[in-house]
Amino acid sequence: MGPATKTVTLEGRFQMHRAGHLESPTMAYETWGELNESRSNGILIFSGLSPSAHAASSAEDHSAGWWEDMIGPGLPLDSNRYHIICVNTLGSCFGSTGPASVDPATGEIYRLRFPTLTLEDVAEAAYGVVCHLGIEQLDSVIGCSMGGMSGLAYCVRHPGAARRFISISSATRALPFAIAVRSLQREMIRSDPKWMNGNYDPKDPPITGQRLARKLGMMSYRSPEEWNQRFGRQRTTATEENVNDPFKIAFSVEAYLENHANKFSGGFDPNCYLYLSRASDLFDLAEHGGSLESGFSKLRLERALVIGVVTDILFPLQQQRDIAAGLSAVCPNTRLVELDCIRGHDSFLVDMDAFRPVICDFFETCGP
Amino acid sequence: MGPATKTVTLEGRFQMHRAGHLESPTMAYETWGELNESRSNGILIFSGLSPSAHAASSAEDHSAGWWEDMIGPGLPLDSNRYHIICVNTLGSCFGSTGPASVDPATGEIYRLRFPTLTLEDVAEAAYGVVCHLGIEQLDSVIGCSMGGMSGLAYCVRHPGAARRFISISSATRALPFAIAVRSLQREMIRSDPKWMNGNYDPKDPPITGQRLARKLGMMSYRSPEEWNQRFGRQRTTATEENVNDPFKIAFSVEAYLENHANKFSGGFDPNCYLYLSRASDLFDLAEHGGSLESGFSKLRLERALVIGVVTDILFPLQQQRDIAAGLSAVCPNTRLVELDCIRGHDSFLVDMDAFRPVICDFFETCGP
Repeated sequence: MGPATKTVTLEGRFQMHRAGHLESPTMAYETWGELNESRSNGILIFSGLSPSAHAASSAEDHSAGWWEDMIGPGLPLDSNRYHIICVNTLGSCFGSTGPASVDPATGEIYRLRFPTLTLEDVAEAAYGVVCHLGIEQLDSVIGCSMGGMSGLAYCVRHPGAARRFISISSATRALPFAIAVRSLQREMIRSDPKWMNGNYDPKDPPITGQRLARKLGMMSYRSPEEWNQRFGRQRTTATEENVNDPFKIAFSVEAYLENHANKFSGGFDPNCYLYLSRASDLFDLAEHGGSLESGFSKLRLERALVIGVVTDILFPLQQQRDIAAGLSAVCPNTRLVELDCIRGHDSFLVDMDAFRPVICDFFETCGP
Repeated sequence: MGPATKTVTLEGRFQMHRAGHLESPTMAYETWGELNESRSNGILIFSGLSPSAHAASSAEDHSAGWWEDMIGPGLPLDSNRYHIICVNTLGSCFGSTGPASVDPATGEIYRLRFPTLTLEDVAEAAYGVVCHLGIEQLDSVIGCSMGGMSGLAYCVRHPGAARRFISISSATRALPFAIAVRSLQREMIRSDPKWMNGNYDPKDPPITGQRLARKLGMMSYRSPEEWNQRFGRQRTTATEENVNDPFKIAFSVEAYLENHANKFSGGFDPNCYLYLSRASDLFDLAEHGGSLESGFSKLRLERALVIGVVTDILFPLQQQRDIAAGLSAVCPNTRLVELDCIRGHDSFLVDMDAFRPVICDFFETCGP
């Protein structure tokens, strides 16, 4: 947790959506800009699977956040006009309660005794933060990737609790290819002998499995088209250590994946990753009423924006069209924007020049 | 090796394309139909990475082969008219010499002492089989997937040694996404502690790594579209053993991958897999003369057929168009067929109703 991250205890028994409960869980969050007098300018952000609440820098924490170019004075999410809140997802490991936290009932780390996590729980915990801040109705909920599903869960469980909704590269529910990717990532971690059925030493976690999972993640987050342009068949130079290894890294794309694996692994708790990954598989808007239509029909939104990327293979464009169609049926003021970015699912993190104008237009902010 | 599989020793020093040599390697192959008097009706098949030479059943071996519906009397590759040869790829483990074979120089299994394998070596070893059979010029070379690259290597190294060429779901060279898939598959196997730097006990191989690699393979061999139709969000029933496992198989697509992993792993030698996988990355037709154009310009073909599948993510359609364009420049009688199959790269193995008519048309056979 950075210096700008605050926490709140959601006092009492926090009932989980499927089964079980948490005793007074903690939620970490960060905010930018001031809440206005009518408490009507709140914007809640749900991140993807792995980020913390530190979405952008501020006076208290100068380090860049994961959506640095999106949030701040004069930026698309304009902190001069809005009170912007980003939560660390329930079940994550950056200040919010999750499988790596101590279970107050036992004094031991939850590990696999953490109850089944769903994105409904993620939404409910964020709702607790918003209530704690004294906000009855948000201006907007914004969700990216997994966070878009959490945002749908928020809006369907608390109709009218947000006037507007932005879904970015998300889904109404996971399809088999995305489930397969995540299932294999989980199996990579669980197959690492150091995972020890969830009872790993936090100082000696299943790094090998995490590295493999991260590489598969990167393959699903980016796009073949980007890599054709960026790497082609470009080679790396053999280093002294690996010159005799017949399977050493030889192509630039292999070195790229290696660098990403090195950066990520060790930074995220493996059990938290497993729970959040499975929660992404489990979410299905159709469970709220028996069909997608009935799920959407519960929403009370004044305006919605759905953004998707043509090269996204994890949350493909058709899923964005499905969200937009479902929203349009209950919220005529819904806009679908299909962006021609080449960097796949990750575009909302790395292709800001494409995303900023669309968000600016929605909030009628001018942008940088 | 099945009862219909024959072997031939390629006597003498077999010089490898990059470096090193093999001493009198063995090649396994299977044939269907008789060679005619003019020895002009030979068809050579290069398989994908993992199949054996047993492409179809015959009087000597009634078990179904990997291209059972394609080869036989009255079938598209008509054994009443053609002498059809399928080789087990050099470097594989079904009768041909590979990393799992004994090195005659040391009396020990090659393992990682096997020299760097390339598809040029694969082609050259098959050329040795064809020469052994007394065939100066083949009617056709057919290559599927990796085998299409081996077929290109055959035709570029021996211009005129085949009159016709069929490339199925292949490439002139691997692009970064395919390299990334294979690199990660190799890393999964090499990360398994049982791999022991290639020195595993053949009775206790790195099954865990092989299973993971197979699952990633299946994800690249099929298509998201197929899985949407076939599985959707269909669930499995929890078994007694896994009822308390929070990450147990819950979706049908996970059970499907599990079944495929169970079927495959243990059936293929891990080191052989690693060598063949890397050989697929390394092949680049442009290395034959400095550019793809100069590579293609070496070919002496009378007719060519390129078949691709719109849903193939491992050898995407654009690569089929590139092969067809390159072939057309030197062999005007080239046809490109883009099949609208839903089962991705594997379509040539599982969607025979789509492939048979195209092959029949090429060979003017009537089909079943």
